Amino acid sequence: MVVPTEAYDDIISLERQPIRVGMIGLHSQSGWAIKSHYPAIMQLSMCFKITALYNKSINQSMETIKDLRLKDAVAYPDLESFVSNSEVEMIVVSTHVVKHYDLLIPILQYATKNSHLKYLFVEWALGCSISQAELIYNEAAKIGIQTIICLQGRKSPYILRAKELINEGALGELNSIEIMGNGGWYGYDRPIKSPAHIYELGYGVDLVTSTFAHTIDILQYITSSYFSKVNAMVFNNIPEQYVVDENGIPTGQKLPKNVPDHLLFQGTLQSGNIPVSCSIKGGKPTKKFTKNLVIDIHGTKGDIKIEGDAGFIEMSNLVLYYSGVKINNVPTNDTPISNSNQNEVMEVHHLRNYNGVLGNIFRLYQAIADFHYSPNGGFKTGKITPFQYQGFEFNGFPTMLDALLLHRLIDNVYKSDSYNSTLDVSNIYTHP
Amino acid sequence: MVVPTEAYDDIISLERQPIRVGMIGLHSQSGWAIKSHYPAIMQLSMCFKITALYNKSINQSMETIKDLRLKDAVAYPDLESFVSNSEVEMIVVSTHVVKHYDLLIPILQYATKNSHLKYLFVEWALGCSISQAELIYNEAAKIGIQTIICLQGRKSPYILRAKELINEGALGELNSIEIMGNGGWYGYDRPIKSPAHIYELGYGVDLVTSTFAHTIDILQYITSSYFSKVNAMVFNNIPEQYVVDENGIPTGQKLPKNVPDHLLFQGTLQSGNIPVSCSIKGGKPTKKFTKNLVIDIHGTKGDIKIEGDAGFIEMSNLVLYYSGVKINNVPTNDTPISNSNQNEVMEVHHLRNYNGVLGNIFRLYQAIADFHYSPNGGFKTGKITPFQYQGFEFNGFPTMLDALLLHRLIDNVYKSDSYNSTLDVSNIYTHP
Repeated sequence: MVVPTEAYDDIISLERQPIRVGMIGLHSQSGWAIKSHYPAIMQLSMCFKITALYNKSINQSMETIKDLRLKDAVAYPDLESFVSNSEVEMIVVSTHVVKHYDLLIPILQYATKNSHLKYLFVEWALGCSISQAELIYNEAAKIGIQTIICLQGRKSPYILRAKELINEGALGELNSIEIMGNGGWYGYDRPIKSPAHIYELGYGVDLVTSTFAHTIDILQYITSSYFSKVNAMVFNNIPEQYVVDENGIPTGQKLPKNVPDHLLFQGTLQSGNIPVSCSIKGGKPTKKFTKNLVIDIHGTKGDIKIEGDAGFIEMSNLVLYYSGVKINNVPTNDTPISNSNQNEVMEVHHLRNYNGVLGNIFRLYQAIADFHYSPNGGFKTGKITPFQYQGFEFNGFPTMLDALLLHRLIDNVYKSDSYNSTLDVSNIYTHP
Repeated sequence: MVVPTEAYDDIISLERQPIRVGMIGLHSQSGWAIKSHYPAIMQLSMCFKITALYNKSINQSMETIKDLRLKDAVAYPDLESFVSNSEVEMIVVSTHVVKHYDLLIPILQYATKNSHLKYLFVEWALGCSISQAELIYNEAAKIGIQTIICLQGRKSPYILRAKELINEGALGELNSIEIMGNGGWYGYDRPIKSPAHIYELGYGVDLVTSTFAHTIDILQYITSSYFSKVNAMVFNNIPEQYVVDENGIPTGQKLPKNVPDHLLFQGTLQSGNIPVSCSIKGGKPTKKFTKNLVIDIHGTKGDIKIEGDAGFIEMSNLVLYYSGVKINNVPTNDTPISNSNQNEVMEVHHLRNYNGVLGNIFRLYQAIADFHYSPNGGFKTGKITPFQYQGFEFNGFPTMLDALLLHRLIDNVYKSDSYNSTLDVSNIYTHP
């Protein structure tokens, strides 16, 4: 399998300074950042160094510095001093989506005061709505900072191998794609300890903006194509949930839910007018005969199946199956599992201990380092030349523009549902 | 498994006369009728007897009578004498769909001259269009003849068991359904011996009117629900096919195709607002990791998976998987395959030698016999009381009204595609 990373020995051998990272949302006791961003940065300590923390309370930052022994890090009492400090070259915003807008707009204003600031790394979904995403994107574009968005599924080794196979023609012409996912949450039961905001619309974390968006972003990335036409139906069939305790036993309490629990989506890809069928279900899976994530991609010369135990493709370990005919009769450098027919090739990829939560984000940080330390990156000139967006490139990383294009698709999902229309989306991918 | 048939010993013991059948489209040398209707009738010879044949050429009928040794059958030179003959109690129309209209309108006119005529059995699709189907239905309704339509998949033992499981609550509340099919034909290659009319729109035999219609009719039947909202996208991505010889080798010839090669369909069932996702692909399957027919039905208490080697559900042998929790802790009378947990039940149904082509039609004829010989059927009174339609009943058989409702759904599939709209179809199932 292709690991999309340069050799890091080269990097260390040069006199390079790690990128100085200021983090928003890193708490030693809980949260997403401590499970994903933090270990990724630690494993890439020649490339990244945490120098600043900002949290709602400075005590939380100080506690985190102490707990994690972040000897180079300073806790900042306010956002302005955190952003404008010359010790910060890269800001990572790892907070609830609902806080993105209120943090990012001032960050982008203060950013002009810090000439060392080069990178702004934000979790998907970049705001709770298309309008928030647009405003944030416009501010970032104005000051020319290099943005990174945590659509980390693009860095999954399974996804990259699938993309590579399709790219080199191993499936021939694609002609049909089916996606089925089980998004977890949003079902009949509500675990008593789950955060309330994921069950309420407008917080930017739901079946559509989260489960679907990551999945469809990956599909577009694998196939190197955006959509031309889409139709969607959004369901809230479970408006009330039963609260269950740690053992899944109902507490007797019921709570309202207004986020979707099911999405039907179908459309055609611009490239090849390929039909894509997609059904994403929320709730605790009862599915016995199918995995919680299945992507079937069919072509004239072969097929790919991607399977996952959980519907969250961007943070899951996966299995990739490929079957097809040899291209130019040159054997691939991958493991052939069965080769009964001389012209048939089959590959099965599964890394038993791959940690999808950490692994994909780790690879995203690697891509940032690749960019930063490359001859055209920030190291040589002292000033980086931002690249607009990743699009469907193997290298690089998704940016705010990639996120904006994805927001536009999501916006059309809701519009299609509201208007009972199949929508032409071929023009939503234009950009400056 | 439940076999939806009464005990035939009872029937024979009574002094009953077999139903006298006049067949249109039975040829001893070729065609569908000789493979399906004919052996079904032969196996039910205490209930049915072929007494008349009509074909385009009387020689063909005479040859068939001779070849099959149909000692009770007469070959008729014209449609009028065939229909009006008192020796005919049931007419079976097993011809190309394109001929339905031109045959059925005169049949229904001549039918008034034959007081013995009780049944009119027609292949799906009952005409090439919604308007033909409506005209035929109206004529039939006027004279009050009992109609039967060959939506024979409803009689598949797998389908009936699935329906039974859902009906008795073995899946709890249904909440998500996914269908994937590979319709054969309509792909990149055109077998040199395949009939030309299946590649041209307007002949009533294509991916939508045939593959999709049978499948979705069965889905509605299993779930006992019609659709409330549908969206569809119809594709003709392969407007030119490569002609291949008997060994699949291209002859060098190319021929145009204008029937669809892919259908995306999604919608919600009236009952429970259940999301249904459906993708039907034409062409020679290259799929290695999935069956050519897969229906996944998920509920709060269990799942059903129906699989078939071919996309043609109405004439395929299938496999039915069920997993769920015991209802009222009463064991089912089916084979438990695994029972590790006291409350979990699993069933797998597969009749290794079940002939789907013959078996389902055989069961349809059985249902006609059940109706005919029942106390309220034709035997007792000498005159049957026609029943309007099967709807979602276990007993009975699909009628022209069932066919008309299905035609309306198909009509909405094409409309949804043309208008780029999600259509409310909740009112298409009304009838006199």
